[in-house]
Amino acid sequence: MTVQAPYGPVHDDLALVEALLDTIRDVEYEPLRHMLDHVLGAGGKRMRPAIALLAGTFGRYDLDLLVPLAASIELLHTATLVHDDVIDLAATRRGRATANALFNNAPSVMLGDLMFAHAADLVARTGNIRVIRLFSRTLMRMATGELDQDLSAFDAGKRIGDYLQRIGGKTASLFGTAAEGGATVTDAPETSIAALRDYGFNLGMAFQIVDDILDFTGSDAVLGKPAGSDLKEGTLTLPSLLALEDDPSPRNAVRRLFSARRSRDRLLAEALATVRGGDALDRAAAVAAEFGDRAHAALALLPQTEARAVLDGMIEQVLHRDR
Amino acid sequence: MTVQAPYGPVHDDLALVEALLDTIRDVEYEPLRHMLDHVLGAGGKRMRPAIALLAGTFGRYDLDLLVPLAASIELLHTATLVHDDVIDLAATRRGRATANALFNNAPSVMLGDLMFAHAADLVARTGNIRVIRLFSRTLMRMATGELDQDLSAFDAGKRIGDYLQRIGGKTASLFGTAAEGGATVTDAPETSIAALRDYGFNLGMAFQIVDDILDFTGSDAVLGKPAGSDLKEGTLTLPSLLALEDDPSPRNAVRRLFSARRSRDRLLAEALATVRGGDALDRAAAVAAEFGDRAHAALALLPQTEARAVLDGMIEQVLHRDR
Repeated sequence: MTVQAPYGPVHDDLALVEALLDTIRDVEYEPLRHMLDHVLGAGGKRMRPAIALLAGTFGRYDLDLLVPLAASIELLHTATLVHDDVIDLAATRRGRATANALFNNAPSVMLGDLMFAHAADLVARTGNIRVIRLFSRTLMRMATGELDQDLSAFDAGKRIGDYLQRIGGKTASLFGTAAEGGATVTDAPETSIAALRDYGFNLGMAFQIVDDILDFTGSDAVLGKPAGSDLKEGTLTLPSLLALEDDPSPRNAVRRLFSARRSRDRLLAEALATVRGGDALDRAAAVAAEFGDRAHAALALLPQTEARAVLDGMIEQVLHRDR
Repeated sequence: MTVQAPYGPVHDDLALVEALLDTIRDVEYEPLRHMLDHVLGAGGKRMRPAIALLAGTFGRYDLDLLVPLAASIELLHTATLVHDDVIDLAATRRGRATANALFNNAPSVMLGDLMFAHAADLVARTGNIRVIRLFSRTLMRMATGELDQDLSAFDAGKRIGDYLQRIGGKTASLFGTAAEGGATVTDAPETSIAALRDYGFNLGMAFQIVDDILDFTGSDAVLGKPAGSDLKEGTLTLPSLLALEDDPSPRNAVRRLFSARRSRDRLLAEALATVRGGDALDRAAAVAAEFGDRAHAALALLPQTEARAVLDGMIEQVLHRDR
């Protein structure tokens, strides 16, 4: 168990979240344990649980409520990743299916469902109806966001507003819920709850936009996946949308890629060069920074504590990460 | 909107459950609405919502609580079916994959997730922590049951006890939760809650065993799917397990099918003939009837009302259905 980021006053308490996640991995049935180890034991940054605990410091910090909530948030996040894998495998079919990828489809669906179930169970343990409802609405937003994303693949008419709406549902809502949930379950003042929700949501928006930029700027090795995979799989993210906005003519390589039925490899290379060559990436980074500013502004409404300083530092980490 | 079965005193109230399900289908995004219509508008028997409402008559019958609960149960059931489709498509790969089947994979995963989310939201609307926890534990049992089922495919060593455990998690637990949830949310006496949980669980066990028998006795046309598909896809259900018990020798055609790597079509036909020809189906029907008896016995602990008579009649309907 390794937590890689220093989360100040709640850093040690994250070990309790890890321990709770460990109990979920401790099942008798060997193949299931193997899969759970794989998805839960990766030693991620645990940003979302850390945000939940940090938010809890603005109310009556109570680990009996915060630890199940934080674990629930992480499980919800991981379950979504697992189902995304299934979805990506389906997309993979468009160009380069592998037998192994197909083989893992069914267990992945069920594994994700099991983690959703554990997440629901853990949040119910808080006994807090408001937090439970927050959780179920978040699940709904995430599911809707995802659905929209997949069905709109290769739809070049998508607008930037739709994109922001989509990443709001897919990513930012869970960051917002981590912060809002931690504050709510500890009975923080309503003004703090609202400020933390704003902080989390805007941090999540910045996080996802940076993620989408990294898909263009990162190397395969650092990303752990082929760079440029969003365009390749027909997903228009902010950089491509801005490149389309820069040059809406039929000559735009991104537009040509999305209307092409053949020569897709060559057109993909051209589209990547178009996005990387213009100012789209800088403009996308500016949008991410704008969400970062909003997150900073939201924090300014909170009492000036060590936890607030840690949350503040996370904004810069998110904006300047390279993976 | 058609409800096909007469559910006595709650029959008219089921229309409210339908209306609530209709609101979930009423989304702006066309492809999503289309999928939701497909899975929710099928005009099924709505047995589980009916059980929840009927169980609610043993407490303070309150439609503001019972309607969201009943809709939540139906959504949970439907979400599971949708994810089962994905899983079956993966199994289909073993013999006869279709491009169309693969194409629907990703949206189906997301559609199921969205319905889980709605189910969680609806049950949270009851504001009843005990019912919410019952719901999340049920989701967990269902997910675990499913997981076990898939990973054990083609595992001929499975025992009948494991089978019963599996269908307990996969099917019976939701029937039990429909009954227990309806009684709990209306504050029925604890003895009635326990009796209704027992009733629902045992009814669900009978329901699934009959389902597994019909896979051997039904025609393709009546079942709406190829008869014998369980054996074909490597799932051992009660009839095959009993046929294996009858003749545990290596000559048993079911055993040979499960250890074969080739000639699977011929061996499948032999295995089906073995199960259909012996007394395995009668013995399986006797086990189903036993669970039916337990369901009857559980009802005997409840006050003798019209709702109880309807629940009682459902046992015979489940045992003697032909589809």
